[in-house]
Amino acid sequence: MFTDEYFMEMALALAEDAAEAGEIPVGALVVCQNRIIGKGRNQTEQLSDVTAHAEMIAITAATQMLGGKYLTNCTLYVTLEPCVMCAGAIFWAQLGRLVIGADDPKRGFSRLTPSPMHPKTRIETGVLADQSRTLMTNFFGRLRT
Amino acid sequence: MFTDEYFMEMALALAEDAAEAGEIPVGALVVCQNRIIGKGRNQTEQLSDVTAHAEMIAITAATQMLGGKYLTNCTLYVTLEPCVMCAGAIFWAQLGRLVIGADDPKRGFSRLTPSPMHPKTRIETGVLADQSRTLMTNFFGRLRT
Repeated sequence: MFTDEYFMEMALALAEDAAEAGEIPVGALVVCQNRIIGKGRNQTEQLSDVTAHAEMIAITAATQMLGGKYLTNCTLYVTLEPCVMCAGAIFWAQLGRLVIGADDPKRGFSRLTPSPMHPKTRIETGVLADQSRTLMTNFFGRLRT
Repeated sequence: MFTDEYFMEMALALAEDAAEAGEIPVGALVVCQNRIIGKGRNQTEQLSDVTAHAEMIAITAATQMLGGKYLTNCTLYVTLEPCVMCAGAIFWAQLGRLVIGADDPKRGFSRLTPSPMHPKTRIETGVLADQSRTLMTNFFGRLRT
């Protein structure tokens, strides 16, 4: 039951909430032993705060829940490839595993050399990528009309 | 009166506050038309939050003060070269000018290619660098004894 797709569906639901609030649709959650210990969706417009990305909010929530700074035994699910800022936060949290939906060739961390990720963070990409991409396309399509 | 050294002295005082609280001594402030509109010092231990770097706190405070997401006409003073996460936040804020104290060859953003900084952000380095470096050396020296 607790597959990567299961948790990514929940992250996608958070991304949909973001879109409905007029935010770029990105959702994230932190899972530890199959329990969700932090979640977030993009809130940069609502909070007028460029640091309020889904991953940042989910990481802060998870570390508050755990009472410690590190997420070494946790998985972060995020619907879009993290940006440089979020990759930096993921590095500091020493995240155990990162599961990504759609890639982001323009703003994603993976275009940087050397990789800003912690060497111990295992990374999976492309989980329910099409759903995430559709959310983004619909969002930006709506803005343009 | 309002020189880069003047504001960096204030950022160094924030870094000293961090050291006294047992935090890695980094301080930051955002200045707009010679007015301080946001300040921060490292609080990662106190808040158990890897995202609570001096720059992140100062940027969030400044955008709250302005009521907008962008810091295009502002200068961020920071006692230590920003890490990847903070560089990402500085990018999103479209910061006008960045003034750095000491460099950070191990964790600083400048080792990354392509540069994660916004092309419009003007960058100065080495302002009161020795004071910042002394704070860091004293802090880590104290930890080791």
